[in-house]
Amino acid sequence: MEVGIVGLGLIGGSLALDLRALGYRVWGISRRVSTCRQALERGAIDAYFDWGVNLPQNTDLVVICTPIEQIIPSLAALVDYLPSTTIVTDVGSVKTPIVARGEKLWPNFIGSHPMAGNNNTGISSAVPGLFRGRPCAVVGKGDGISERVRDLWRSVGMEVYFCDAQDHDRAVAWISHLPVMISAALNLACGEESMAEVRALGQKLASSGFADTSRVGGGNPELGRMMAQMNRSALLHTLDHYQAVLTKIRQQIEREDWNNLEITLSLAQKLRGNYCPTPSS
Amino acid sequence: MEVGIVGLGLIGGSLALDLRALGYRVWGISRRVSTCRQALERGAIDAYFDWGVNLPQNTDLVVICTPIEQIIPSLAALVDYLPSTTIVTDVGSVKTPIVARGEKLWPNFIGSHPMAGNNNTGISSAVPGLFRGRPCAVVGKGDGISERVRDLWRSVGMEVYFCDAQDHDRAVAWISHLPVMISAALNLACGEESMAEVRALGQKLASSGFADTSRVGGGNPELGRMMAQMNRSALLHTLDHYQAVLTKIRQQIEREDWNNLEITLSLAQKLRGNYCPTPSS
Repeated sequence: MEVGIVGLGLIGGSLALDLRALGYRVWGISRRVSTCRQALERGAIDAYFDWGVNLPQNTDLVVICTPIEQIIPSLAALVDYLPSTTIVTDVGSVKTPIVARGEKLWPNFIGSHPMAGNNNTGISSAVPGLFRGRPCAVVGKGDGISERVRDLWRSVGMEVYFCDAQDHDRAVAWISHLPVMISAALNLACGEESMAEVRALGQKLASSGFADTSRVGGGNPELGRMMAQMNRSALLHTLDHYQAVLTKIRQQIEREDWNNLEITLSLAQKLRGNYCPTPSS
Repeated sequence: MEVGIVGLGLIGGSLALDLRALGYRVWGISRRVSTCRQALERGAIDAYFDWGVNLPQNTDLVVICTPIEQIIPSLAALVDYLPSTTIVTDVGSVKTPIVARGEKLWPNFIGSHPMAGNNNTGISSAVPGLFRGRPCAVVGKGDGISERVRDLWRSVGMEVYFCDAQDHDRAVAWISHLPVMISAALNLACGEESMAEVRALGQKLASSGFADTSRVGGGNPELGRMMAQMNRSALLHTLDHYQAVLTKIRQQIEREDWNNLEITLSLAQKLRGNYCPTPSS
C-alpha cells in the first residue's frame, strides 16, 4: 500500500513511522523542506514531494496531519494532482466544518480523529506506537471507503468508532475541548497568588496531581484557539454546565455542607469510572 | 533506627516497604488487624501492635499515615505509651490545624506533607519507590528535630522543603485542593450531557487528556471532603480566582475574541512551565 502523509509533526511523523514499520510505502509533504529531510533521515518516509508536483499516482490513501486550520487548504492544494481513487482523511479534532467542506472538495474524503498526542510538537518528537490502544473516531457508517480508513487506524493499533460529525463534535467538546479550557484556567489562576513565597512554595510542591490536571491546559495555544473557534457552540454549552457544577461545589464548601460535598465527590468518582475504567489511568 | 507507622494504607504501607528495604526496623498499627497481617505478609513491617500496648521503647520516629481526620485522635491515643524522645510526624495534606493541635499534644511533633500518591487505597496498593523524586513539605526551619524528619523523607528519595504551616496550606490550596475540585466538576459536568449517544461516544473517545484532567477529581471523596473542611478559606480564595479566570476565557470564546484567547492560552502554557518544567510531565 502507498500512503501519503501531509504535515510531518508529532502526529504525521509518528503515523509515518508506524506505517513504514508495517511495510507500507510512505511519502510525505511538509511546509518546510527541512522537516521533510528530517523525516527521511529518521526513516519515517520513503520520499517527499513539493505540493502536488509528481505525486505517486498509485497512492491509495492520504492522511492530512497539518494544524487544523490548514486541513482544508491542504486538501484544496492536492485535489488537482491526486488520482480520483485516492481516499483522503485527516486528523482534525473538530469534524463538522471539515467534513462538510472536505466532501465537497473530494468525494473520497472521510474525516478521522485519532485521540493520541502529547504536549510535544514537531517531527523530532515523533515516536513509534503513539496510537496503540488509543481510540479513533471515523465519520461514517462503516461501509464503503470508511472501512478502508478504519483499517488504516486499526493497523497502527487504534480502537476505531464510527460516528456522525455532529455527535463527534459534541462528544469531544466534553472530553477534549472543555478539559483544555478548565486546565488552562488552573494554570492562569495559580499565577494570581499575590504572595511570592506562596507561589514559590506551590511551584516546588506541585507534584503528579497538579501536573496531570494542568497538562492539557499547557498545550499548544494555537490548537486550543482553533478547537474553540471551530467547535464554539458545543464548547460554550459544556462550559455553561461546568460553571454551574463548580458553583454548586463552591457553595457546598462556603456553606460548610460537608456531607453533601462528600456525596458530590462520590458521584464525580463514580461518573469518572464511565470514562476511565481503572482509577489510576 | 526503629520507626513506627500508624495507618497502613497506600502511603503508610509504601513508606514501610521503603524503610524496611533501607534496613530500618518498622512496626505498624492499623485499625484492622487483617491489614496488619497483610502488611506483615508483604514484608512491609517487622511487627504490629494494638493501640499503645507494648510499643517498643526504643522507637525513634513515628509517622502517622491515617486518613487526615484520624491524625490528631491517633496521636492522642499514642502519647501515653511513647518515650518522650520519640519524634512524631504525619502525612496530612493540611498543616495549620494539625500542627497547632499536634504540638500541644506532643512537643516533638513535626508536620509533614509528602506529595505522593495515586487514586488507589489500602495496603494491597502499597508499592516500593512511591516517594522517589517527589516533593515533601516539612513544617519547620530545618533546625532541631525537623532535620531528623527531613532525613527520613530524604532517605526514601523525596525533595524536602521547609515552610510554615500557613504558607503550606495556601500553596497546596492552589496546587492540590483546587485541582481536586475543578477535576471533580469535570467528571460531574460530563454526566450532564443529555443525549445518550453523545455520552456513550464521549466515554469511548476519552483518552489520555481526559484521563489526566479528570484523575484527581475521581479520587477518594472522603479525602476531598476533609481537604475542603480543613483548608476551607484558602480553598475558597483559590476557587474565586479560578472562576473569574474561567469566566474570562468563556467570554473570549463567546465574543469570538480569538486573538486574545490565544494570548490567554499562551500565558497558561508559560505559567505552567513554572510548576512543571517539562511540557509532557
